[in-house]
Amino acid sequence: MMPVTPTPDKDDAFHDECGLFGIYDHVDASAHTVLGLHALQHRGQEAAGIVSFDGEQFHTHRALGLVGDHFSSQEIISQLPGQCAIGHVRYSTSGETLLRNVQPLFAEFKFGGLSIAHNGNLTNAHALRRQLVDRGCIFQSTSDTETIIHLIATSEYGKVVDRLTDALQQVVGAYSLVAMTRQKLIGVRDPHGVRPLVLGRVGSSWILTSETCALDIIGAEYVRDIDPGEIVIIDEKGVRSIKPFQKQPDRFCIFEYIYFARPDSRINERSVYNVRKKIGAVLAQESSVPADLIVPVPDSGVPSAIGYAQESGIDFDLGIIRNHYVGRTFIEPTDQIRHLGVRLKHNANAALVKGKRVILVDDSIVRGTTSVKIVEMMRSAGAAEVHMRIASPPTTNSCFYGIDTPEESQLMANNYTVEEMAKHMGVDSLAFISVDGMYRAVGVEQGRQGDDRKFCDACFTGEYSIPLTDHESGNPTQLSLLVEQD
Amino acid sequence: MMPVTPTPDKDDAFHDECGLFGIYDHVDASAHTVLGLHALQHRGQEAAGIVSFDGEQFHTHRALGLVGDHFSSQEIISQLPGQCAIGHVRYSTSGETLLRNVQPLFAEFKFGGLSIAHNGNLTNAHALRRQLVDRGCIFQSTSDTETIIHLIATSEYGKVVDRLTDALQQVVGAYSLVAMTRQKLIGVRDPHGVRPLVLGRVGSSWILTSETCALDIIGAEYVRDIDPGEIVIIDEKGVRSIKPFQKQPDRFCIFEYIYFARPDSRINERSVYNVRKKIGAVLAQESSVPADLIVPVPDSGVPSAIGYAQESGIDFDLGIIRNHYVGRTFIEPTDQIRHLGVRLKHNANAALVKGKRVILVDDSIVRGTTSVKIVEMMRSAGAAEVHMRIASPPTTNSCFYGIDTPEESQLMANNYTVEEMAKHMGVDSLAFISVDGMYRAVGVEQGRQGDDRKFCDACFTGEYSIPLTDHESGNPTQLSLLVEQD
Amino acid sequence: MMPVTPTPDKDDAFHDECGLFGIYDHVDASAHTVLGLHALQHRGQEAAGIVSFDGEQFHTHRALGLVGDHFSSQEIISQLPGQCAIGHVRYSTSGETLLRNVQPLFAEFKFGGLSIAHNGNLTNAHALRRQLVDRGCIFQSTSDTETIIHLIATSEYGKVVDRLTDALQQVVGAYSLVAMTRQKLIGVRDPHGVRPLVLGRVGSSWILTSETCALDIIGAEYVRDIDPGEIVIIDEKGVRSIKPFQKQPDRFCIFEYIYFARPDSRINERSVYNVRKKIGAVLAQESSVPADLIVPVPDSGVPSAIGYAQESGIDFDLGIIRNHYVGRTFIEPTDQIRHLGVRLKHNANAALVKGKRVILVDDSIVRGTTSVKIVEMMRSAGAAEVHMRIASPPTTNSCFYGIDTPEESQLMANNYTVEEMAKHMGVDSLAFISVDGMYRAVGVEQGRQGDDRKFCDACFTGEYSIPLTDHESGNPTQLSLLVEQD
Amino acid sequence: MMPVTPTPDKDDAFHDECGLFGIYDHVDASAHTVLGLHALQHRGQEAAGIVSFDGEQFHTHRALGLVGDHFSSQEIISQLPGQCAIGHVRYSTSGETLLRNVQPLFAEFKFGGLSIAHNGNLTNAHALRRQLVDRGCIFQSTSDTETIIHLIATSEYGKVVDRLTDALQQVVGAYSLVAMTRQKLIGVRDPHGVRPLVLGRVGSSWILTSETCALDIIGAEYVRDIDPGEIVIIDEKGVRSIKPFQKQPDRFCIFEYIYFARPDSRINERSVYNVRKKIGAVLAQESSVPADLIVPVPDSGVPSAIGYAQESGIDFDLGIIRNHYVGRTFIEPTDQIRHLGVRLKHNANAALVKGKRVILVDDSIVRGTTSVKIVEMMRSAGAAEVHMRIASPPTTNSCFYGIDTPEESQLMANNYTVEEMAKHMGVDSLAFISVDGMYRAVGVEQGRQGDDRKFCDACFTGEYSIPLTDHESGNPTQLSLLVEQD
Repeated sequence: MMPVTPTPDKDDAFHDECGLFGIYDHVDASAHTVLGLHALQHRGQEAAGIVSFDGEQFHTHRALGLVGDHFSSQEIISQLPGQCAIGHVRYSTSGETLLRNVQPLFAEFKFGGLSIAHNGNLTNAHALRRQLVDRGCIFQSTSDTETIIHLIATSEYGKVVDRLTDALQQVVGAYSLVAMTRQKLIGVRDPHGVRPLVLGRVGSSWILTSETCALDIIGAEYVRDIDPGEIVIIDEKGVRSIKPFQKQPDRFCIFEYIYFARPDSRINERSVYNVRKKIGAVLAQESSVPADLIVPVPDSGVPSAIGYAQESGIDFDLGIIRNHYVGRTFIEPTDQIRHLGVRLKHNANAALVKGKRVILVDDSIVRGTTSVKIVEMMRSAGAAEVHMRIASPPTTNSCFYGIDTPEESQLMANNYTVEEMAKHMGVDSLAFISVDGMYRAVGVEQGRQGDDRKFCDACFTGEYSIPLTDHESGNPTQLSLLVEQD
Repeated sequence: MMPVTPTPDKDDAFHDECGLFGIYDHVDASAHTVLGLHALQHRGQEAAGIVSFDGEQFHTHRALGLVGDHFSSQEIISQLPGQCAIGHVRYSTSGETLLRNVQPLFAEFKFGGLSIAHNGNLTNAHALRRQLVDRGCIFQSTSDTETIIHLIATSEYGKVVDRLTDALQQVVGAYSLVAMTRQKLIGVRDPHGVRPLVLGRVGSSWILTSETCALDIIGAEYVRDIDPGEIVIIDEKGVRSIKPFQKQPDRFCIFEYIYFARPDSRINERSVYNVRKKIGAVLAQESSVPADLIVPVPDSGVPSAIGYAQESGIDFDLGIIRNHYVGRTFIEPTDQIRHLGVRLKHNANAALVKGKRVILVDDSIVRGTTSVKIVEMMRSAGAAEVHMRIASPPTTNSCFYGIDTPEESQLMANNYTVEEMAKHMGVDSLAFISVDGMYRAVGVEQGRQGDDRKFCDACFTGEYSIPLTDHESGNPTQLSLLVEQD
Repeated sequence: MMPVTPTPDKDDAFHDECGLFGIYDHVDASAHTVLGLHALQHRGQEAAGIVSFDGEQFHTHRALGLVGDHFSSQEIISQLPGQCAIGHVRYSTSGETLLRNVQPLFAEFKFGGLSIAHNGNLTNAHALRRQLVDRGCIFQSTSDTETIIHLIATSEYGKVVDRLTDALQQVVGAYSLVAMTRQKLIGVRDPHGVRPLVLGRVGSSWILTSETCALDIIGAEYVRDIDPGEIVIIDEKGVRSIKPFQKQPDRFCIFEYIYFARPDSRINERSVYNVRKKIGAVLAQESSVPADLIVPVPDSGVPSAIGYAQESGIDFDLGIIRNHYVGRTFIEPTDQIRHLGVRLKHNANAALVKGKRVILVDDSIVRGTTSVKIVEMMRSAGAAEVHMRIASPPTTNSCFYGIDTPEESQLMANNYTVEEMAKHMGVDSLAFISVDGMYRAVGVEQGRQGDDRKFCDACFTGEYSIPLTDHESGNPTQLSLLVEQD
Repeated sequence: MMPVTPTPDKDDAFHDECGLFGIYDHVDASAHTVLGLHALQHRGQEAAGIVSFDGEQFHTHRALGLVGDHFSSQEIISQLPGQCAIGHVRYSTSGETLLRNVQPLFAEFKFGGLSIAHNGNLTNAHALRRQLVDRGCIFQSTSDTETIIHLIATSEYGKVVDRLTDALQQVVGAYSLVAMTRQKLIGVRDPHGVRPLVLGRVGSSWILTSETCALDIIGAEYVRDIDPGEIVIIDEKGVRSIKPFQKQPDRFCIFEYIYFARPDSRINERSVYNVRKKIGAVLAQESSVPADLIVPVPDSGVPSAIGYAQESGIDFDLGIIRNHYVGRTFIEPTDQIRHLGVRLKHNANAALVKGKRVILVDDSIVRGTTSVKIVEMMRSAGAAEVHMRIASPPTTNSCFYGIDTPEESQLMANNYTVEEMAKHMGVDSLAFISVDGMYRAVGVEQGRQGDDRKFCDACFTGEYSIPLTDHESGNPTQLSLLVEQD
């Protein structure tokens, strides 16, 4: 799905769009899927869905909101019987959070039902959609996942894996998929491997999911990461895999390490937490400054701040206190409340920071609106100096591969130099980690290596490795003419 | 949609399945559609939907429940802007009342959006659906209306009216349709004209709707009934009509006169109320019996009872009192309450009926369970004699043309003779109007005339004029493999 | 409670304020109370409540809305265990329908808990309340029933019946009460017997309730009406009764016969339906006019219209058709819908009334706004003449004894002569039954007999037999300073 | 209110029971109260209420749930007009969370309305309640706050402050109160000063609230802590104060520093965050052990863990990762999910802790069930050693002064020695801070000083300074005979 502009302040961050979970041959398939999705909740909080198959019928439940709020009751789980299930959590801006867009999607085909869940974004979805509509396909959602379903439905091939392969040969973009038929659980990563997908196992049951933290929650063991371009097919004969796509250079999203993934997850056998601490350490090496306190911007800045503190020898301390009860529904009815903005979520620990030289550590700067307010808050709490260190390079470009980012014109780093940004924020100094420093932190000691760089860093460099078909042909981002008011 | 068995007692009646309303070029299109649907509420109480078009976009709102409960607020109406709108009310048993089945349906086509609402039932929907799925169409609902939409989408023709005609050439069954495109409001009746559809006008705006009572509520004037097999196209050039189908004998549903339509409606310029009174009069002629009181079974038996009383000279009186507050949600949690059954809705007017010879007049007998209880109630209130007169012939057969009827095995008249029924009910006498008497009451003085009979009376005679393709080939009535729990 | 002005049109009628039901020593006490309240729903649709006692604890459930919607589930009934229960339905305008005002009220006393439900209105509640607040009582509701509870709590007497008697000696007004303690079910009618209360029996269980229709629904037998000024005490020793109050003239509310009670109820062993038919017959005698049709204003005018028709020999016919699905929630968002007003509920049966001389029969005229619209509707349907006959005398005065009536200035008959009213309504003739005629219809052949008249007819005559303490001292009707937004 | 046993695991912690906020003479009184309550949400998440006064009327809104979910809309705030308001958040176990128990309570008195909000617990509420019921007072809630209201209502004094003083002279226990009359905002702390209350100011408006973080959120300045035994009266003449009670030794709840208060609050001008870090440092001094990592149990253990790490020189690191999306409604339908328990909230950061000697730092141990699971989780993540350090002494005794604690029999430290606890938890070592160490951390360098100790530490020592009248006379904790099912 194309990025949509969220409201300022409320969402001054990039957002991962989806988390996936599928389990094959387990007596508590749906309950485990609920747990897996709960562990992946950070990848999408707006909606969740599960489809189970009980050997005869597919069952589905979808809801807007959190997994724990809508899927954890006995009543719901008993409505999702069967030994196989797939599930999905998604982030989406409100206007598009129609229940009919909530995944997994399900379709009845000639050969039987198929359910599919998708993490990523197709860059030629609109072009394909137009072709499909021209030949008589009727779309029910604005999700580009439905494009894949229609491509499967209209494929000339006979078997489901062949149809799926045929469909995916036509799409361009970033995607990890989990699909379920009457006989199979299937996982796919796009040829560049932009989005994560791992294989796990609990007892004799197989699991496909976005992150290892979803294996941990159910006590499953990690088996391996699915390869870029790999299709894994799990059925009663076991696990097998095919790689039908032309080989492409690896382009795993480096932002997953910086911000999206949970710190207790391991990606490609590398600890996300350790990468973040290492980023903090590199930052401390690259842009050291004398100070009394290292203060994380809660909560995502904490690991990098710890890494920075340990490298620099300066004390790590909580100079900003977070209100744990910021519900998703604080409506901010009055100007007075609206202007308080960040204070609903954070308060300065004035007794600590007063008179101190403070280094704030944050994961990234998107619009910069939150940063401005946090610096202001530190100043009015009496901080002697306020320095800002950012655990990623400046985000200058939009993502078209499945991350919800503002338009480029709204990215602070797209409009200003680092010096201008520092001035605008009112900090005594501002530094971002270098691109090479970031690569070193993820284990590429020699830094970024051009085409051989292994990671997608387009949001920092503007180098898009996968063609942006729709974007470049000016396709509209509004996929539907229908405005639904369910 | 195929008939589904409702729970006994609760629904011991036939149920019309839908009401339609469309309006072209009116500043308050949606508000008028709300009113029209409210007047048609007796044709379907389970769900309602409206789609409006504002010149740029289609807008839709759908809800389970009554029109007045879900569509009458300013907030909802303002979400349905535009000068054209179509709406739909439907009856359905709970298992199938998914919101995605609620009409009007909407689809985006190559040529633009189209919204469609349907009253009736296709008798070859399953066969068509299988063909469509085979060629790659993906169905989202279990509604046979969606079959029509896919036929339109995959038609080889270019213009919307041609595509619609092409689609309807392929379907078999009973249907009245109202459809809306970006430029047009379209109305259709199937070639046999089974379901009603009328044209009305208020100021310079045109209306298509199921019954004249929906014209009355908005102060619109009745123009004419749409002809069987006619397609009416309303656009900025005015109203025109085509008749592309092969001519078929008229088969208007005679039960609309007996029970479904509102008594203040006129069908084919004949007053429904007058027909019902006439039925009562014919009944009195055909099966007179000495008595003290004519007592209607509330409320549908009232007009026939008045007709019977006026013809027979016996006093019309309320021997059964109805509780006006029987909500749709009386849950009957205990056996005690369940056994009270009919008393939740009705009570005997014991002071009136005690010691009297009573003639009960009811519109029809379906399962007979309610009748048994009402007779019992009259007896225990002290009635000296209880005679039952029914304003329709015995209903021996299911309807496949859009009316929700029980399976034939559950129809009392399918299993018993009139004498057996009388015994089972415990009445002193039981009589139904004759088929010829019923025809006389609707104005066919010579009675039923074989092929030239003009009306569909299959539920009384078992003579189905339109082929029952799906039924005869044993197609399942469950259209989807997906069990949705929204 | 003091009358409050409802919105025009929506509520162009008098409203009874309450229905009572209590049952002693029955295994399904709560389920029976639910049924009883359902049968009494016409006496109050805004809220309902039940308190049960299980031998140890009192349990309560209260809800805004209909009994069937909120009390009929197994879940609710299981939360109301015990062999004794009392229940209450109430009518109230919205601003005052706080859940905390919903009866029965419950209080914990020195001697144990007591629950009480009230139908009527105290005319010195404000004066008493002021005294009670002065001595430190804290009121939680705006209900005058709470005044009785505080009087019981602060009584110097020891036993509950003595305390209740002591409390009632201090109050002035119209009331029927049902109360429940840990040992007893108690019923009371005020010394004038303004509001109804009957004793019934099912098996070995005793019932106290407002109307006999609540006995019928559970198959209970009617034992007798409670006398004015009688306190009935039901406990393990059986039923006994005391009459501690000074004897007062009977003043049963004659409007209960005309409109409030259900037609299948018997009051003082007289059938309400028969009284209404008799009223119609007297009307026909008093103010006959040549006509073609007698048309009831649905539904309350039907029995009188039948009586009128039978007396006059003119045909009874449904010239006005009611929409059965007028929910309580039709919000009327637009002016267009608002102006349609009566058409949401009624439509003219134009095919019937066109060219005819019509006599409309209605139960009463309050503001007259609905009547104006109905006459208009008959005219535009083509009626040749429209005559209006009213089954009660002109309502010229407000009720202070438990009926919700508009202020006198809003009563049409308070402002206009019958001739002026006829002109305003646009009828060809208008006639009300005479006061003496009304007395004859309720069985007092000689008509109204001054002080010996047995009935309260203050709303027709302005003769208030019970002092209006609060009203005359200008006490405010707003009892609370607290505006609650639950 | 008496403590009630919460379910294990879910609530393995002490819970503060209330937060207070009142504001006098501010144009946005209610909006500011919403913000203040939001900042105090950690003091009670089950329910919230606000009463405002607009110069004429009191307005109230109360809701079960979070402030942000139920109070932040324009609609709600506009229903709470006026320049003065008081608000309350409360913690309570579900059975007792009746809406009618939600504070502030309101009562209409002889002298006008009064609204009152309470943080604390009266230890003679039952005894007083019995006396009040005997004299005819009727209680509507089970809250001991209502006892205060009845004492005010029945006081012989004339003026509100005199009545309030008179009432408080009779109560025993711990309480901070905020009250509002038509003219005044009043704050009270009990003579021992157990619960906090501070005075603040924004512009010319005065504020009374539980913690300084509620001043920070609205940009108000801190003026001073209210003294134990002080009554502060704010009206148009300004702020004045009286101290009508007999002087008592200070007994401020030391647990507020350890756990309840927000770390960014200052109590008695001492930073809560700094106290907690100091506790960690004292712990490191008292019970050092060689280790590789200091790991906080999220989130409450973080400040002490930082203090421990800085004192010991061992690295602070996140060895446990918290799931931020643990809603309050994860229902745990299956045994499987239930057994996962803590993993719904936490996961081990296995890549970090594997092979390491870990010191876990937590704030306190209540039942110990959570600790057992967390240690287990560390072990199975491969930690070489697991040591536990607790930032409070063993909690051996229940609180009767306003904190929700389990019964003593369920407190782990009440049943086991430290060595037994260590064994039960499976740790390599376990140490609690000493009582004297805790006193040093709150600034009392010489440690606990007997009667002069200034703080209430009864939960650690069993020395209850305020009489436990109800508890010692065996009064029931269930205050009401009425079981309400609203």
